[in-house]
Amino acid sequence: MQTNYQQIIDDITSELETLDNPGRVASYIPELAGVDANKLGVHLMTVGGNRYSWGNSEEKFSIQSVSKVLSLTFALQVMGENLWTRVGVEPSGTAFNSLVQLEYEQGFPRNPLINAGAIVVCDALITQLANPKKDILNFVREISGHKKIDYCPRVFESEKRTGFKNYSLANLCKGFGNLNNDVDTVLDVYFHLCSIEMTCSELAQTFLFLANEGKCPVTEKQVVSSQRARRINSIMQMCGFYDEAGEFAFRVGLPGKSGVGGGIAAVHPGKYSIAVWSPKLNEKGNSYQGIKVLEAVTTRTQSSIF
Amino acid sequence: MQTNYQQIIDDITSELETLDNPGRVASYIPELAGVDANKLGVHLMTVGGNRYSWGNSEEKFSIQSVSKVLSLTFALQVMGENLWTRVGVEPSGTAFNSLVQLEYEQGFPRNPLINAGAIVVCDALITQLANPKKDILNFVREISGHKKIDYCPRVFESEKRTGFKNYSLANLCKGFGNLNNDVDTVLDVYFHLCSIEMTCSELAQTFLFLANEGKCPVTEKQVVSSQRARRINSIMQMCGFYDEAGEFAFRVGLPGKSGVGGGIAAVHPGKYSIAVWSPKLNEKGNSYQGIKVLEAVTTRTQSSIF
Amino acid sequence: MQTNYQQIIDDITSELETLDNPGRVASYIPELAGVDANKLGVHLMTVGGNRYSWGNSEEKFSIQSVSKVLSLTFALQVMGENLWTRVGVEPSGTAFNSLVQLEYEQGFPRNPLINAGAIVVCDALITQLANPKKDILNFVREISGHKKIDYCPRVFESEKRTGFKNYSLANLCKGFGNLNNDVDTVLDVYFHLCSIEMTCSELAQTFLFLANEGKCPVTEKQVVSSQRARRINSIMQMCGFYDEAGEFAFRVGLPGKSGVGGGIAAVHPGKYSIAVWSPKLNEKGNSYQGIKVLEAVTTRTQSSIF
Amino acid sequence: MQTNYQQIIDDITSELETLDNPGRVASYIPELAGVDANKLGVHLMTVGGNRYSWGNSEEKFSIQSVSKVLSLTFALQVMGENLWTRVGVEPSGTAFNSLVQLEYEQGFPRNPLINAGAIVVCDALITQLANPKKDILNFVREISGHKKIDYCPRVFESEKRTGFKNYSLANLCKGFGNLNNDVDTVLDVYFHLCSIEMTCSELAQTFLFLANEGKCPVTEKQVVSSQRARRINSIMQMCGFYDEAGEFAFRVGLPGKSGVGGGIAAVHPGKYSIAVWSPKLNEKGNSYQGIKVLEAVTTRTQSSIF
Repeated sequence: MQTNYQQIIDDITSELETLDNPGRVASYIPELAGVDANKLGVHLMTVGGNRYSWGNSEEKFSIQSVSKVLSLTFALQVMGENLWTRVGVEPSGTAFNSLVQLEYEQGFPRNPLINAGAIVVCDALITQLANPKKDILNFVREISGHKKIDYCPRVFESEKRTGFKNYSLANLCKGFGNLNNDVDTVLDVYFHLCSIEMTCSELAQTFLFLANEGKCPVTEKQVVSSQRARRINSIMQMCGFYDEAGEFAFRVGLPGKSGVGGGIAAVHPGKYSIAVWSPKLNEKGNSYQGIKVLEAVTTRTQSSIF
Repeated sequence: MQTNYQQIIDDITSELETLDNPGRVASYIPELAGVDANKLGVHLMTVGGNRYSWGNSEEKFSIQSVSKVLSLTFALQVMGENLWTRVGVEPSGTAFNSLVQLEYEQGFPRNPLINAGAIVVCDALITQLANPKKDILNFVREISGHKKIDYCPRVFESEKRTGFKNYSLANLCKGFGNLNNDVDTVLDVYFHLCSIEMTCSELAQTFLFLANEGKCPVTEKQVVSSQRARRINSIMQMCGFYDEAGEFAFRVGLPGKSGVGGGIAAVHPGKYSIAVWSPKLNEKGNSYQGIKVLEAVTTRTQSSIF
Repeated sequence: MQTNYQQIIDDITSELETLDNPGRVASYIPELAGVDANKLGVHLMTVGGNRYSWGNSEEKFSIQSVSKVLSLTFALQVMGENLWTRVGVEPSGTAFNSLVQLEYEQGFPRNPLINAGAIVVCDALITQLANPKKDILNFVREISGHKKIDYCPRVFESEKRTGFKNYSLANLCKGFGNLNNDVDTVLDVYFHLCSIEMTCSELAQTFLFLANEGKCPVTEKQVVSSQRARRINSIMQMCGFYDEAGEFAFRVGLPGKSGVGGGIAAVHPGKYSIAVWSPKLNEKGNSYQGIKVLEAVTTRTQSSIF
Repeated sequence: MQTNYQQIIDDITSELETLDNPGRVASYIPELAGVDANKLGVHLMTVGGNRYSWGNSEEKFSIQSVSKVLSLTFALQVMGENLWTRVGVEPSGTAFNSLVQLEYEQGFPRNPLINAGAIVVCDALITQLANPKKDILNFVREISGHKKIDYCPRVFESEKRTGFKNYSLANLCKGFGNLNNDVDTVLDVYFHLCSIEMTCSELAQTFLFLANEGKCPVTEKQVVSSQRARRINSIMQMCGFYDEAGEFAFRVGLPGKSGVGGGIAAVHPGKYSIAVWSPKLNEKGNSYQGIKVLEAVTTRTQSSIF
């Protein structure tokens, strides 16, 4: 039986338009606070190449922490499993633990998808790469098949100016000997990474290799081995939604990653990737409507990875 | 292509026999400390009814915390989604946090597969059931298709006598108003639950409904709906291995649950359930060889849920 | 110059009568919740034997945790400095840490004036004494010079029935091997200790030995050496007011100990002891007006230990 | 009876020379690691002006965190009790909690004598002063009566280069809105403050006003009111020795403050101030021999504030 993804997406987005959205746009990055709160875009792309869109799916937004999956993928490509001497693969528990755990575990971040972990991944990349910012961008362009994907200088500047918590995390890692480069150098790359902009359709295509045993069906490039793709998916499942990871597995049942810009990318291995964008966040910092859309897709298709 | 599970199991168990096992039998429950440390049993059962065994797969062992999946399943059947007003679905983070988190979150356990959560689940069952201990046992016998499965009185007594940490957790929940029955009444049921004994083949068959959209192919009973089966699987994935949950997802990639008796049950939805028993535990409290066997199965079949 | 303590006490209590008292009577011990919230008693006794009273100073109240100084004194008399192998002398920090710290420090309570520490002190006394409850009561009667001081059975029963947090703490200590006797036996003594009743004048006289180099001027008994008296005072200073210890040192500047019954005992070494009773507690669990009275006494006499 | 301080100091220092010193010189500030580990200096000065010295009491050393008492005193002089809207007066508990507590309490440091607290005090001073570094130095010179006291540029540079933990703390406070100036500006002042050098005799004289109701007997200046002197002393008592504060109160019984340079300043209100310097630290980061000397002084004089 052919699943009618377009119908499902049309139905759920129609329903959402009639419902109140109690979420709030992230305010701590000034540049993001100005975005139109009512945007909603969805793009689902199957491993067979079919595409289903809805709403503002061709509009650029700041992917923010969704990019941490890309830096992880690149770091694994560059330095292989040695990366795991620098960062773990365990969920991080409650938000309240962020600095606590990092101090308790002596500067060894619990996973590469929380801020501290992504900062350490950036440090590892800087050590290995000739032109870190350029090389990272080229990697993202290559796996996405979109050569015009770029950093957003205004978002970068805004985060750099206000990212005191990230300076705190980076200095703590540095103090424990888990940063090899200068804090400022590392955060320059990290804030650039966070500032990458994509549309929903670009983001869905970028993540499609993770639904297709490591190979992008569009570019026909084998980005990572099938085993590595499974492992990246497992990390997204366990660690992709901060202290809402269990709830997301319970309700949606797909590996995925969210960002404070309101974007979420998720994959159903063997079937499809999907990107959703809606700026208002729930109290755990994940897109309120984005999760609603994904929950509807897996519930109505009666199909999750579980 | 037919996967040759028997060959894979034979290969990995042969290899394990030649390797050192650095694990240690759990010592804090005196009755468990006396078990033969060198036992190794494996049983894999497909949703189509094929069975593959190795070693001590027909020998009874104490399933301990593996039973927490069964009490969760029963509680969901008895009281439905109301259960989630009493316990969460989030991973618990580090072991060091056990009491910390419970106090910080005011007696609301993070999930039903850690001790505090299973204690609260037992309390919920006691309130609903006429004969809790008998009813739980009957439920387990029914879904397993094995009418002789039973509690082990010696293990029960041993845990009751030495389970001070569990008394501490239960009293903390009680103090926060999240236990409706007496601490002693609740722990009597809880310690009985932990003392259930099964063989690997019984345990694999018991968990098979979770691999088969909620229906046991042997008894042909629909234990839970397919959606509920997926949700129980998601909780096992996120919370089944304490602070090694991320590592287990990364290396094995299946939903599962371990016990300090050295048993692990895991499922590949749509494909099979598998039970492994080897008493020596790694430093995180999970069966050292049990995880090795499961990692080999999913690596060599190049197939995990991710 | 003779300090006019009576005038100071009269002045401050008159002022307090005209002011709102935002405190609240402790509600978690049902028997204590029924006490008259407006009681206020003060009794100051100098080492020279002068006495100054005000209000309900001859009325019995439940001294609760104030008694932890007496169990500590008795334990030091019975087993000497060996006690410090079981419990520390450090302040406990925030309330939120109570179970956290006990678990982090593996069942070794930070000091003998928090619940966990006093439970361990009771355990140590039980091991040494023939009739612990009787012996403790006799000790208190002896150092107070009041033979009719007694436990309150109703308060004891009330605490035993509702003291789940204390059962949690005791079981945690037991699990870490820092209780030698049964949890129920230890808590029976502990809850009795908490239930001791005194008047302000009795309580001031009981603590006078700590202001007089270890010797009670009334009974002329040397209760402890002068060095030990100084050390007990130092522990009261650092640990006597939970996470308000710093504030109490800052505002009042005397070693002292509070109880949830609304009583406070404090001493000015070389000068006087003082007992205050007012049942309404501030948000840190210490008597709101009790602290006001003590702050006025040391501010208006321009004299604290600092 | 005249106390023979000189005899007591001579006796204890003679004894210490025959005993092993298991302490270790602080190694995390490179410039401090090079100091001669065997230095031992003592200087006691009575409020009446008598002076008692021993050993290397006229040699300069880095007073490090002892200076936090001076920045606190200056801030109270400059902005009064408003300071307490920015920082608390409670002991900080275990070292492991440093960042934990600061995050849990949302950037409000527990007291002005831990790093985070002193950083906030420096921020408050910078906002109020025209030339912060110069003004602070002038204040220290004035209350000490020694016009040549100065910062040490090499120690300053060394701390600035390696003080990642302090950058982490400062950024966390900044992120919570509890720093008004730039992190770099604040830490520039903070690291200068830490780098102040004094001899034991200078340090004892500097602290003498705290033993003399706020007035320095040498310069005859009233530095602070007698009440404020008592309050500063209470904060030193509760918070001056990190997680060894209880032990120091128990063994020594004087308000004081230690630094990682191996210095300790302490006062006996109404009697004397004392400064000790010995670079080897115990495992809590306080001078091993320094504490021994102070314990001997209060034990042999049978006199502490308690």
